Amino acid sequence: MPSIDPARFLADLHALRRIGEYKTGVHRPTYSAVDMQARRYVVARLAEAGLVADIDGIGNVLGRDPSPGPHLLLGSHLETQNHAGWLDGVLGVVAGLEVARALGRGIDVAAWADEEGHYLGFPGSRSFIGDLTEAEITAARNRYDGTPMRDALAAAGLAGRPRATFAPGRWRGFLEMHIEQGDDLEARGLRLGVVTSIVAIWQYRIVFTGQQNHAGTTRMAARRDAGLAAVRLAAAIDRRFPEICAPRSVWTVGRITLDPGAPSIIPGRAEMLFQFRDADPVVLARMAAELETLVAEAARGPCTVVLEPMARATPMVCDATLQAALEKAAEARAPRAHQRMPSGAGHDAQYLARVMPAAMLFVPSIGGISHHWTEDTREDDLVLGCQVLADAAAALLAA
Amino acid sequence: MPSIDPARFLADLHALRRIGEYKTGVHRPTYSAVDMQARRYVVARLAEAGLVADIDGIGNVLGRDPSPGPHLLLGSHLETQNHAGWLDGVLGVVAGLEVARALGRGIDVAAWADEEGHYLGFPGSRSFIGDLTEAEITAARNRYDGTPMRDALAAAGLAGRPRATFAPGRWRGFLEMHIEQGDDLEARGLRLGVVTSIVAIWQYRIVFTGQQNHAGTTRMAARRDAGLAAVRLAAAIDRRFPEICAPRSVWTVGRITLDPGAPSIIPGRAEMLFQFRDADPVVLARMAAELETLVAEAARGPCTVVLEPMARATPMVCDATLQAALEKAAEARAPRAHQRMPSGAGHDAQYLARVMPAAMLFVPSIGGISHHWTEDTREDDLVLGCQVLADAAAALLAA
Repeated sequence: MPSIDPARFLADLHALRRIGEYKTGVHRPTYSAVDMQARRYVVARLAEAGLVADIDGIGNVLGRDPSPGPHLLLGSHLETQNHAGWLDGVLGVVAGLEVARALGRGIDVAAWADEEGHYLGFPGSRSFIGDLTEAEITAARNRYDGTPMRDALAAAGLAGRPRATFAPGRWRGFLEMHIEQGDDLEARGLRLGVVTSIVAIWQYRIVFTGQQNHAGTTRMAARRDAGLAAVRLAAAIDRRFPEICAPRSVWTVGRITLDPGAPSIIPGRAEMLFQFRDADPVVLARMAAELETLVAEAARGPCTVVLEPMARATPMVCDATLQAALEKAAEARAPRAHQRMPSGAGHDAQYLARVMPAAMLFVPSIGGISHHWTEDTREDDLVLGCQVLADAAAALLAA
Repeated sequence: MPSIDPARFLADLHALRRIGEYKTGVHRPTYSAVDMQARRYVVARLAEAGLVADIDGIGNVLGRDPSPGPHLLLGSHLETQNHAGWLDGVLGVVAGLEVARALGRGIDVAAWADEEGHYLGFPGSRSFIGDLTEAEITAARNRYDGTPMRDALAAAGLAGRPRATFAPGRWRGFLEMHIEQGDDLEARGLRLGVVTSIVAIWQYRIVFTGQQNHAGTTRMAARRDAGLAAVRLAAAIDRRFPEICAPRSVWTVGRITLDPGAPSIIPGRAEMLFQFRDADPVVLARMAAELETLVAEAARGPCTVVLEPMARATPMVCDATLQAALEKAAEARAPRAHQRMPSGAGHDAQYLARVMPAAMLFVPSIGGISHHWTEDTREDDLVLGCQVLADAAAALLAA
């Protein structure tokens, strides 16, 4: 059985924590200077480990083991949400690097670009499986400041580089280690989660158009208040979704903007970002139908309401053989301290699963916190997870 | 009876429309380059009319007629809301200028700074009546981009200039002509409104604090969603305020911000700007008590809710003598085409009323639209209003 080097593994995690450090977390937006620095850091470590590594035209880091024989692909992503945690994504990349070092052969490592969606949803893994068009890249803009993705790629020195794509036959599967980002493992006193499926995210932009006007002189009855229309729809979702959802369903209004957003002006336009998630396609369809009903009810008010679907993914089921290998390794290193569980978050693995067997391993998140700079995991859990990943990879390559 | 010069009056209005022109309206934020250009334009016209005119340390334009004898003060403001109308404020300043020219003596003209509250509420008129401290100016920041007010004053060349203040005994009263900004005159087929009172605005910032977290992995029951807390409070206000308000009460949520505002992150913090208006102190107190009850109910949820009062004004009653003079002039020029009415909007006149008799004259707003670049008034209504203002001013000076 291979042995990872815990000190070396943790040292790389902490080195990456300092690139874009923010309080105890990291602020490393996709294609920013610190993001590119992190990518180059990983390329250098992969090269030291004997892999042939480079950054491709979408920002993916890909390190290939030049040895003959069977290969596994391990990895996750390097950029972070704004002012977010030090482990989300990075953990799976550094664990892949450490397993490559521990096994000495058979491990390729990837860091997929922009999993966090500063520009697009999962462009790195989608590019790799051949699911990303040039037109999509051209149309994409930064979600926060509107920078065109092409400009950001050029500024990062990536314009004109080829995009790496999937080569059939090379890999036995893809393994992604990740923090849980919820509190289920912690609440049950467990240390490892073998992921059974990844829930699908259905996401919408909802645009309300009314009439901008003076907040003092416009009678209540004469108003077409786009902000109020948004509030009423959000409140209706809050009332009705609990009646139609499944036990693990979640839904979130992540953004509301009122235009122009001044205290004495009735908003003439409002926008809301809304998403829901579930692992069951039937439940997803039921939630979508309910949303459409509520939007139709809202549109009978004084404002126009437009529902724009942004993403309707399909739930992904993890490969049974890879799950079994992870579970066997988990039981050997941490008897009865692991469980099978779905992932509430989306991950690159859901795209890799379209072209090869894929599975995921979770370690606990302290307090269930993620997408915030206070995100953290106990170091012994990080080391345990990496060791179990190495054991499972070795077993899969030996099979 | 004095006769105004309609062509000269309209030419000045259109000249100012071109300073910061935006579509058919104007974008002229307080202390911006175009705002200062507009102030200098008015100073030059006042000087041509024989007034001693200058810009003071808060940006107020003040033109004084050097003649002996009784004086009236006429005016309004010059800056606009963002991408707003060409008449809001400007009309009262240019009408004051035209009345000064038509009467030849006895008229002082003011353009009060920042009535629109880019930095503070009514700092110009409040400074003039001695109600604005240096500490308030030092603390004030631009509502949209956070620029300190001191920096903006310095950039506008106003740092170190003295602030003009009220001199008891000089003025018989203050008259402010303004667009109605509502649709009441238009709906009744009337051309002039003699304002009886100005409603008070009570304004609040409401801050919700929860726990920022991942929108996929955090169970609904475990969430502390600050955005949802804001939506629920806004929906509760929408349900309950109609039951306790008076017929002319209005209330508005002008801004909602969710932090961080990303689609896959549960907002950890939210902020809401809320205001209500009425001319009756009893109704204002009832609305405030209801708001406090709703906030207390909201605070029993998973988020903390803090209600920060920003402004609690007192309704202002217009001076009876000035109202009578305006009404008599209106009846002479437009028989039965005028009414007495309250103002739903706040105006500088409410501050001037603390130190001298004050009143206002309204002309119709087409479609009731204001605070938007499509704001407009028929030219014959503009001219009629200015002539009635001149007649009333002449009568008051002759009394």
